[in-house]
Amino acid sequence: MTSLDHDKAFLADFATLSQFGETRGGGVERQAATAADGEQRAWLHQWLTDRGAEVHYDGVGNQFGLFTVTPGAPYVLSGSHLDSQPLGGRYDGAYGVLASAHAAHRAVRQWATAGSSPRYNVAVVNWFNEEGSRFKPSMMGSSVFTGKLPAETALATTDPAGTTVEDALRAIGTIGDYEGPDVAAYAEIHIEQGRGLENEDTTIGLVDSTWAARKYQVVVRGDQSHTGSTIMADRRDALLGASLLVVAVRELAEESTQTPLHTSVSEMTILPNSPVVVAREVRLHVDLRSPDEALLDAAAKKLAGTIPGIEERASVSIEQVQTHGWGVAPFPAAGVELAAQAADDLGLSHQNVMTVAGHDSVNMKDVAPSIMLFVPSVEGISHNEGEFTHDQDVCAGTDLLTEVLHRLMSGAMDSR
Amino acid sequence: MTSLDHDKAFLADFATLSQFGETRGGGVERQAATAADGEQRAWLHQWLTDRGAEVHYDGVGNQFGLFTVTPGAPYVLSGSHLDSQPLGGRYDGAYGVLASAHAAHRAVRQWATAGSSPRYNVAVVNWFNEEGSRFKPSMMGSSVFTGKLPAETALATTDPAGTTVEDALRAIGTIGDYEGPDVAAYAEIHIEQGRGLENEDTTIGLVDSTWAARKYQVVVRGDQSHTGSTIMADRRDALLGASLLVVAVRELAEESTQTPLHTSVSEMTILPNSPVVVAREVRLHVDLRSPDEALLDAAAKKLAGTIPGIEERASVSIEQVQTHGWGVAPFPAAGVELAAQAADDLGLSHQNVMTVAGHDSVNMKDVAPSIMLFVPSVEGISHNEGEFTHDQDVCAGTDLLTEVLHRLMSGAMDSR
Repeated sequence: MTSLDHDKAFLADFATLSQFGETRGGGVERQAATAADGEQRAWLHQWLTDRGAEVHYDGVGNQFGLFTVTPGAPYVLSGSHLDSQPLGGRYDGAYGVLASAHAAHRAVRQWATAGSSPRYNVAVVNWFNEEGSRFKPSMMGSSVFTGKLPAETALATTDPAGTTVEDALRAIGTIGDYEGPDVAAYAEIHIEQGRGLENEDTTIGLVDSTWAARKYQVVVRGDQSHTGSTIMADRRDALLGASLLVVAVRELAEESTQTPLHTSVSEMTILPNSPVVVAREVRLHVDLRSPDEALLDAAAKKLAGTIPGIEERASVSIEQVQTHGWGVAPFPAAGVELAAQAADDLGLSHQNVMTVAGHDSVNMKDVAPSIMLFVPSVEGISHNEGEFTHDQDVCAGTDLLTEVLHRLMSGAMDSR
Repeated sequence: MTSLDHDKAFLADFATLSQFGETRGGGVERQAATAADGEQRAWLHQWLTDRGAEVHYDGVGNQFGLFTVTPGAPYVLSGSHLDSQPLGGRYDGAYGVLASAHAAHRAVRQWATAGSSPRYNVAVVNWFNEEGSRFKPSMMGSSVFTGKLPAETALATTDPAGTTVEDALRAIGTIGDYEGPDVAAYAEIHIEQGRGLENEDTTIGLVDSTWAARKYQVVVRGDQSHTGSTIMADRRDALLGASLLVVAVRELAEESTQTPLHTSVSEMTILPNSPVVVAREVRLHVDLRSPDEALLDAAAKKLAGTIPGIEERASVSIEQVQTHGWGVAPFPAAGVELAAQAADDLGLSHQNVMTVAGHDSVNMKDVAPSIMLFVPSVEGISHNEGEFTHDQDVCAGTDLLTEVLHRLMSGAMDSR
């Protein structure tokens, strides 16, 4: 196949994949272990099998496609996630899984054409529930695979309707007892979900480290009362307390004018959520991120300092627990260098970047030599039906990932 | 029966009624046309039938129990509502329906004992869906009965799960084709849901007018984006906009230090409500109430004036529509006077009060001479499992309602 053929084949498959759970606004909605997720997993299963891979599922629904060319050898693993946010975009995760499938298959054929055996095999992975919208937390499948989350905890997690992960996975038939391949190295490619590459007119981002993040679950407790007749002084309004907190969280970002600090509250559960009953309880999530850990710590401290004032003003009590977090953590320099050389050899512009969003590679880098690549996102739009990456960038990224996998299969990260 | 017997019988029935949908916290949860609502309606049906009333249902599930002692004559109607808020109290509405049932039955026996026929019959009503938590708007049954809301609109209204009022009423079997009695006068008794009577150590409140109220549906529109990677300047955060609005609504009340202004937001629908997706849309209800219409208008104007600033700060658009409202409207003075004389004759302390909360009587007063009575609420607690009224006040209110119904049946409001 020529390079043009590769591009055509990839774009045709990406168009097919984008039909699963497609939305009117040009996006997709295929939350973890829903019917649409089951359909796309079945399609990927067939795609991989048709090209000689063996497909297996582990106990939390991670989907592996193994191309075994050197029997008994470990695997270079490459992947991302097919699940999406509600009304999400076509590229987030899905691009990385399909690019991995094409790149792995192309790398395998390159080795076959050359008539030589690589040191390592290659495998594709579709991690279960990276998004964390239906079942929390996010990055669930890779967290279990890397020993950060017990499988039993993940399987017992319920969605808002009370369905467990285990039941949902059984319903779509993608749960098994495979223990996963022996991983020699890990690679992932993803859309940037920011404006950095676009602003610099660069095709490839080489992720050299993560922003730090802190995630909190907050419970605001008030008391039910009548929205009309209860005198204001008697109200213990949990929704007022929650709203004051949302504003305080935004103010942290507004006050950080030197170093970026990203803050948000995007989910609330309001009880009883009736138009004439003052809310007795609001549960919400706070998300703080920065490339500067000290700044993040100071912001978290400042937020904690605003809570007593909010408790007093709304006559509520507020409980805040950190549920998740990570520091500014490097990806191995050897991997960044390997990918930079491969990009140079392919004539692709590149720059080092940090990742603000969490990715499965953030888990994987702690257990295997890992490489994380970005392609540009138009206007940085993500978690939105309008998410877009130009075809030429999509194809360039797949070309680079093919080259990276080929080099990793030769053991290029071993000696570094 | 002696007065003590009446009290015992009432309190025993109230204890039985309070078991339908009872909650661990000592309250009830029996939202409109749920199974618990169906059970209590069946129980009331039997209670009324056992005492010689005929029970009929109209096309929107209003439940009528007719005591016909003067065939062909119109009816004095007395009632309230049995439905509750989620985790609501035992007294709100239910007290008024059971007091009406006991009072009507006692008044009928008084006329029988006296061997004379009243000018009017008496009927008990349990209005459908006064609370408006499951199906909006509140006061639905009385709004249809008084011609303020088309029956078709009410029947087609859906709950959050998509069930229509009509289907829900058919499921509990309390929908019919009765057109309702010819109403000569209306009476209702309810807990105060405020601290006024308790503070004044008064047993009976005679409602002489309503506070004014304005209710708005507000839609805040932003755009989905990634809570981590999207730069702050690119965010169009609907939940931030909604939170700023909640705070602005509270500030209206805080700034009104002379005349009371009650303000609240207690319900929000957040889309997509995912922990890592900036909210694209939030729908919420704003509730403003005051005894001073001019103040209420000024507050509404002030709130509208804050919207452009919120739109700019959160990069959202906000649409506000008034969905419901009422002015400061009098109950007929003749009814207040009649009830005051009855209370004096029974030796019950009383004072004139305004009602802050909406009641079915607020609808009924526009179509029939109406009397609205309150009994004290301990600490003003309402829409809460801890709602409480002392037994002696409960029984005194029922005694007064009996006397009021007896006088209304004689035509006491006709000549006034």
